[in-house]
Amino acid sequence: MGLDPDPALMPVDDVLGFNQAIIEATADLVCCYKPNLAFYEALGLPGLEALQQTLEHIPKGIPVIGDAKRGDVGSTAKAYAKAMFQQWGFDAVTVNPYLGKDALEPFLEYADRGILVLCHTSNSGAADFQELSLGQPFRGWTSQDNRQVALYEQVALKALEWNRWGNVGLVVGATYPEQIRTVRELCPDMVILAPGIGTQGGDLENTVQYGVNAGCEGLIVNASRSVIFASRNQDDFAQEARKAAMELRQNINTARDMVGR
Amino acid sequence: MGLDPDPALMPVDDVLGFNQAIIEATADLVCCYKPNLAFYEALGLPGLEALQQTLEHIPKGIPVIGDAKRGDVGSTAKAYAKAMFQQWGFDAVTVNPYLGKDALEPFLEYADRGILVLCHTSNSGAADFQELSLGQPFRGWTSQDNRQVALYEQVALKALEWNRWGNVGLVVGATYPEQIRTVRELCPDMVILAPGIGTQGGDLENTVQYGVNAGCEGLIVNASRSVIFASRNQDDFAQEARKAAMELRQNINTARDMVGR
Repeated sequence: MGLDPDPALMPVDDVLGFNQAIIEATADLVCCYKPNLAFYEALGLPGLEALQQTLEHIPKGIPVIGDAKRGDVGSTAKAYAKAMFQQWGFDAVTVNPYLGKDALEPFLEYADRGILVLCHTSNSGAADFQELSLGQPFRGWTSQDNRQVALYEQVALKALEWNRWGNVGLVVGATYPEQIRTVRELCPDMVILAPGIGTQGGDLENTVQYGVNAGCEGLIVNASRSVIFASRNQDDFAQEARKAAMELRQNINTARDMVGR
Repeated sequence: MGLDPDPALMPVDDVLGFNQAIIEATADLVCCYKPNLAFYEALGLPGLEALQQTLEHIPKGIPVIGDAKRGDVGSTAKAYAKAMFQQWGFDAVTVNPYLGKDALEPFLEYADRGILVLCHTSNSGAADFQELSLGQPFRGWTSQDNRQVALYEQVALKALEWNRWGNVGLVVGATYPEQIRTVRELCPDMVILAPGIGTQGGDLENTVQYGVNAGCEGLIVNASRSVIFASRNQDDFAQEARKAAMELRQNINTARDMVGR
């Protein structure tokens, strides 16, 4: 569940209070929380303080993904990895692959943390670069088709190489189930984080069907606004978020059961 | 000049005090300051407070580039743009193009701010994705060579399309002067930010020669560690930074004079 506070959609002014109520109402339902740092940074230093306090209120057993999509060169990447893993204490982070392997290396060195590499994002502009064909043949292990590899597929193949500690995953938007299928084919065992369910209109059934691994696991389905703002600014926001989270969880499990059959 | 405090290389503990001394010693020499947010985030909330106070100490007439390399989808990108331009108040920012145009649109809408799009970064791993050939012919305006366009070139061409307010620039590392030449050819009038001079070993003379536009302008050469840590942890760090900045400025101007001839 995304913890992405937006004052315009919150019935209370207090970000920490909002997050706390949402966490208390949903902690038994979620597999992870995923705060996106943008929403806290947009509120200035008080927003970042609220994030720090929010993290302290998440029950210990629930992993927290710091969604920050960071990516920078050498010593700067090292500073970002320190910020995300040591200062914020996230269990996993999202990172941007554009700068190449050495820019992700300082993250990858944290063998006990997760590194989720942007592969095919959920937005409409994802195709601008991520779907561009590279001048080399597609090397899918089961596909027989005769086409060129796309940039996002090359990212997936590189992520396999980088995964020496088994801590690398890929971000593929739930709005692109066919691309999820392709990535799962290329990376049979890798964790896939699929954001974009809910407000962005992602396809839950196909995301689950194509996204799970052979053991019917390895997929993190994320929703944010459709759950945490389910009450549309009403006082019962926490109960409504719980209802929305329960419904989504049920729908995920139903879709998962159908794959198992 | 990059304002990238690293406690291991600073003779004082106090980030704000360090930055203030550096700014006072160099404000008459630099065209911009460029704090990289990673180094402040790595110090937790006190680091971000020091950044806020640092920004207040930069003289008004000097533009400040917030080097954050952000990039995210839709509403999240909007939150990042708000954070960078409204909360931090940066005059320009660096952004990552991997997510495509709609992810940069919330930044581009700030017509009075600069948006510097990562094109070819200064690190060794830049080639991993940025130099991959796309399955389409190169469309340089003056080149006659018969090759395919590389991803970083496609980013440069797209940046031209996005530049409806004249506020878009490109980041091309000074460690890759040939790529600076190519980007300048594709984008004759666009501002190029060239980091990587100094510690990273960028080639100043060729960066200037290839990077300036027809009017011998349009290039921002950045150095960080080689200037601000010039004293190697000694008490005279501000004077040494001034000396290093003066020398670099002189070298830039000498290289620029040679282009003019």
